[in-house]
Amino acid sequence: MKNEILYGIHPVEEALRAGRRRFDEIFLVSQRPSKRLQAIEDSAALKNIPLQRVSDARLSRLSEEAPHQGVAARVGRFPLVNLASLISGEQIAAGGRLLVLLDSIVDPHNLGAIIRTALGVGVEAVIIPKNRAAGPTPTVSKASAGALEHIRLIEVTNLAEAIKTLKSSGWWVYGMVHSAGDSVFSKDLTGMVAIVIGGEERGIRPLVKQNCDFLLTIPQQGQVTSLNASVAAAVVMFEVYRQCHDTHTPRRAANRCERG
Amino acid sequence: MKNEILYGIHPVEEALRAGRRRFDEIFLVSQRPSKRLQAIEDSAALKNIPLQRVSDARLSRLSEEAPHQGVAARVGRFPLVNLASLISGEQIAAGGRLLVLLDSIVDPHNLGAIIRTALGVGVEAVIIPKNRAAGPTPTVSKASAGALEHIRLIEVTNLAEAIKTLKSSGWWVYGMVHSAGDSVFSKDLTGMVAIVIGGEERGIRPLVKQNCDFLLTIPQQGQVTSLNASVAAAVVMFEVYRQCHDTHTPRRAANRCERG
Repeated sequence: MKNEILYGIHPVEEALRAGRRRFDEIFLVSQRPSKRLQAIEDSAALKNIPLQRVSDARLSRLSEEAPHQGVAARVGRFPLVNLASLISGEQIAAGGRLLVLLDSIVDPHNLGAIIRTALGVGVEAVIIPKNRAAGPTPTVSKASAGALEHIRLIEVTNLAEAIKTLKSSGWWVYGMVHSAGDSVFSKDLTGMVAIVIGGEERGIRPLVKQNCDFLLTIPQQGQVTSLNASVAAAVVMFEVYRQCHDTHTPRRAANRCERG
Repeated sequence: MKNEILYGIHPVEEALRAGRRRFDEIFLVSQRPSKRLQAIEDSAALKNIPLQRVSDARLSRLSEEAPHQGVAARVGRFPLVNLASLISGEQIAAGGRLLVLLDSIVDPHNLGAIIRTALGVGVEAVIIPKNRAAGPTPTVSKASAGALEHIRLIEVTNLAEAIKTLKSSGWWVYGMVHSAGDSVFSKDLTGMVAIVIGGEERGIRPLVKQNCDFLLTIPQQGQVTSLNASVAAAVVMFEVYRQCHDTHTPRRAANRCERG
């Protein structure tokens, strides 16, 4: 399993741009020319990557019937980062002070969506468990609109142990819970912040929860009381972003209700 | 088209709880008993709704092969609200001061996800165009985890006209754009706020954009510059929520980096 097949325009484009994967070969559909497929072809030529024109049917087999948008690539596996190098700081991006830990997200579409948002927010790394959780597959790259290709992803065997390591390295760990946590909007989330997001069905596992410094909840109204995991992740990540960038929201100046 | 088939536990549960749809008949799988299916059966008995036990295969045909989780129901169409009644205030929930307008979201899963979040935030209504956009189908109810059944949804033929009507009724209209808008975190979003979210591919259409009072952008880092529509919607809706609930985020007290 040294190779895998990336498919879809965004994953291939972003993997080329990120330059972190080995490219063995790119497969382009013969019909259906487009600017973006042309750009991929040009990039392949520049980087000396073998390129084959193939039928739509062949591409569908390569992508295992997932929507391939006319392109696939045989590439090396997704390059993981390890926790030790994160801790030692060797690979720490300047200014990056947010980690996201995912406790058993199993749906690759949720994982992809969270990674896409995490990249937008500028998180330092996303940490996932090695087992019983979605991993960095081509499906996830597609679901992330290619964001996976740029994100720093760490796989750990034991999330609770990883949290202990992080805490002893100066990180504050906040676990997201459906209810009874402090409001995410009332807590100081600046500094070295690690956010733990629970899996779709059961949320954060008890042992992981015990190791969090604080539990946070997104306040909600109404009858249906849980948010989708990727939405909850987005709301808390952007709240950290907002606080860390120290944006001053203007106070209500006039009563806006009186527009009419 | 007076009837449709709802399927899945959440949609049927929430439609029963909301009490807004006519229930003609409920179909329960014969095998696979569970607490939640039992509760649906009890609720059907209480409300005198005919109930049939059917095979898994029959349920799959009813749900058109979508995952039905052992239950479906033949129900009346989703009850829409109209803009005039929103404007006149007859149906305005106490304290509700946020509207969400969706300019041509076409993916039912995105529509469902946005509606789920909108219900959680407590928006007053969601406004969608009647044509060339996803509507309140059973697929959307499923994707919203049943939240659709509780939300007030308004369909309009012309979104730009609807915006004009809202403005003349005292609402401030903010359009979400990928770049070059004011940061959502720097703008006063209290008062009577209507947020316009653009479609997946093209964003907000020019005529709709022209009619917005302000354009807002979610600030982002990194290489992949666009957020999923449902994530962008969640971030801005919860920022409005945060500002309206006037939460005081504590200032950084001590330097949290020094934990270790």
